Amino acid sequence: MKIPPVKGTRDFYPPDMVRRNWIIDGWKKVSVRNGFEEYDGPIFEYLKMFQIKSGDEIVEQLFSFEDRGGRDLALRPEITPTLARMVNQQINSLPKPIKWFSVPRLFRAERPQKGRLREFFQWNIDIIGADDNVLADAEVIFTTIDYLQEVGLSSKDVKVKMSSRKLLAAVLRNIGIPEDKHDALYTLLDKKAKLPPKTFTEMLDKQVHDSKQANKIKAFMELESVPHVEKMFSRDNEVVMANDELAEVRHRLDQMGVADYCIFDPSIVRGLAYYTGVVFEVHDVVGDLRAICGGGRFDNLLHDFGGPLIPATGMGMGDCVLQILFEQKGLIDKNLPEKQLDYFVATVDKPLNIGMADGVVEKTEEDIVVQLTAKLRLAGYFATFSYKAGGLSKQLKEASDRNAGKCIIIGEEFKNNQLVVKDMATGKQELVDYDKFLSGLKS
Amino acid sequence: MKIPPVKGTRDFYPPDMVRRNWIIDGWKKVSVRNGFEEYDGPIFEYLKMFQIKSGDEIVEQLFSFEDRGGRDLALRPEITPTLARMVNQQINSLPKPIKWFSVPRLFRAERPQKGRLREFFQWNIDIIGADDNVLADAEVIFTTIDYLQEVGLSSKDVKVKMSSRKLLAAVLRNIGIPEDKHDALYTLLDKKAKLPPKTFTEMLDKQVHDSKQANKIKAFMELESVPHVEKMFSRDNEVVMANDELAEVRHRLDQMGVADYCIFDPSIVRGLAYYTGVVFEVHDVVGDLRAICGGGRFDNLLHDFGGPLIPATGMGMGDCVLQILFEQKGLIDKNLPEKQLDYFVATVDKPLNIGMADGVVEKTEEDIVVQLTAKLRLAGYFATFSYKAGGLSKQLKEASDRNAGKCIIIGEEFKNNQLVVKDMATGKQELVDYDKFLSGLKS
Repeated sequence: MKIPPVKGTRDFYPPDMVRRNWIIDGWKKVSVRNGFEEYDGPIFEYLKMFQIKSGDEIVEQLFSFEDRGGRDLALRPEITPTLARMVNQQINSLPKPIKWFSVPRLFRAERPQKGRLREFFQWNIDIIGADDNVLADAEVIFTTIDYLQEVGLSSKDVKVKMSSRKLLAAVLRNIGIPEDKHDALYTLLDKKAKLPPKTFTEMLDKQVHDSKQANKIKAFMELESVPHVEKMFSRDNEVVMANDELAEVRHRLDQMGVADYCIFDPSIVRGLAYYTGVVFEVHDVVGDLRAICGGGRFDNLLHDFGGPLIPATGMGMGDCVLQILFEQKGLIDKNLPEKQLDYFVATVDKPLNIGMADGVVEKTEEDIVVQLTAKLRLAGYFATFSYKAGGLSKQLKEASDRNAGKCIIIGEEFKNNQLVVKDMATGKQELVDYDKFLSGLKS
Repeated sequence: MKIPPVKGTRDFYPPDMVRRNWIIDGWKKVSVRNGFEEYDGPIFEYLKMFQIKSGDEIVEQLFSFEDRGGRDLALRPEITPTLARMVNQQINSLPKPIKWFSVPRLFRAERPQKGRLREFFQWNIDIIGADDNVLADAEVIFTTIDYLQEVGLSSKDVKVKMSSRKLLAAVLRNIGIPEDKHDALYTLLDKKAKLPPKTFTEMLDKQVHDSKQANKIKAFMELESVPHVEKMFSRDNEVVMANDELAEVRHRLDQMGVADYCIFDPSIVRGLAYYTGVVFEVHDVVGDLRAICGGGRFDNLLHDFGGPLIPATGMGMGDCVLQILFEQKGLIDKNLPEKQLDYFVATVDKPLNIGMADGVVEKTEEDIVVQLTAKLRLAGYFATFSYKAGGLSKQLKEASDRNAGKCIIIGEEFKNNQLVVKDMATGKQELVDYDKFLSGLKS
């Protein structure tokens, strides 16, 4: 019976797995050198946990199920709720700031689209409980950029678009939008770049009936720099303070040497209500892909999950859009680590006999190959032999194709207990006593 | 709102994650050096896919759910069906033998017990399409032992108990058990070690009414060596052939230098019907834990999943029992990799000011710390500074606690553009020109 894979999922054949590992290993390496420690939680949690941060609408986008004990569970669509749960559980014993990262596998019960699958990986970095909010926001953005630079995405390829939810809230208040309308507006304003201008204007007009107010919102979202905001709202202390905070984050990023990646963009909103300060997204400069990542400050997160009020800031980057961008830029294949085969063990005269061996056999060349390969592996080397029947030249070609560092040849010389060791890079061969070779492996 | 984790799942706080990574990295390292390539599939598949190999009973042990398209899906309880599906999809283009490994996260909807959780990791290695079955079986067992030896489990700690399903089938036929009773008997015989002897005898008597036959089965299962089997069934050609094959695998393992780990144990059956040749399990010698891993030959797997008849052999090792054993033997903590902090950047006079900075600031010591740390990270080093307010001695203690290789001190000398670089191992300090230090990082 032949059964297909489920749509929106991926099979990772070995060449795909090498790519997946390259992406994930890069995320891990950059996290560690920036001082983040790895954590993970379960693949499924109580369904209601995912409603706290994202509201009831999230239920529609979840794979949920009931276990045999009648509990409503769901596959995690994000790891932030798990992070909040785990940090709250140990809030008193964890040293601050908590700098954690994770590379969870996540799930969304949506119709698969380009760059958006039902199963994917997402890099998450979070800083919780730092005293200096500006420095923490800057470190999260810096770490994101450190990864982009690591994989060869320059400031000509991608930009970190930054704004501030605090600034947007202050602007909306300044314009006269009542507080209870803000959350719905965030969701709409977040979609501005994805909507045709006319559609956006119509939708905005439905939420903001006063056209002067609507125009002011649109004007703000098109401002090009922090000084422009200061000019437009110079007399509003709340706007000025939020603006200053954003300028300070920008100043830190300048100090950190990555300012060329960063631009101010007040149209960056992030849809969810839970952001409370700086928000940012990374976009490719060509601009035809979804956001590569998004993040920002969310100081109420732990409190919303039953914990104390502690500042927090973080970032999430999925692997699907990233992989499309890497392919567009030709960045994966040239960066993949070379396969390291330390030893290829070959025979001269007798092709490897891959038929049945007798119960009790004399030591044939094949036996030596198996024995030596096993000893090399036990000593920690990546060693192999040919599974195909074929003479020495075919075996040497296979060794070369597999990028072997050295090829050991079992031949005539073995009667004198000697191996031929060929350096595949230089082509140089030398005779080595078998016992000396083995004792050399152990030391 | 405080929500607990789901029972039978695990939270991996950073210290737990270090342990999990140590186990998984070990599996990966040993797989690669033995020539296996990594693959993975989706976390969920069509429910019916899991019934092919394990029968309808498996449905009771699965987390299953219906997606919005009305498809019956399930979280994978094992990866072998996915392996069969993926190999069948590309059977003609994949070079043989296919030597693949995976470290899937798996799920069982069971009551959690010691060493058996609802969510766990399992190392899988498989060889498909090898011409030499004996060598392939031996390589799977060898790779398993290579890992055990790698992590410090000697042949005094654990044993590979080997038998053969082909041998057991021949013995049952010799004894006169009809073919249609074999599958049910495998399930029972597999439980022998876990049942009190009296209970086992009673259950066996229910399936095998002839007490002579039942006694012969029990006698076989208690035989201590391959020669004993030969003696008991010397005139049965089928038994002798299965026996010889097992002896050949054993002979290969002897050649490979790991025979001290291996013992013949005809009570090893493996419950599932799908095994067709050599079967094995690894057990701790003390013997109070479940099997650490299990495996064997299953030549019908691909065919059962709609593909061709191609020989296959493999092994699966979960992380739960293994971790209990590691803890019993004190093997984890001493083997964990040391944390590598390359640089700790400290200040002399002025404790790091972690309050708000001004929008525009002169370069303070703190600025230099942030700048230098960023440059070190961008150059690929793991670098950090203290987030706490505290003088130099406190910072040096923190650097030492964090196992820093070097500590860079920003002090008076910085007026002359010089850094103090302290080697934390030797205590030696030297003055280095800041620009020279930076240009050294780039090269």
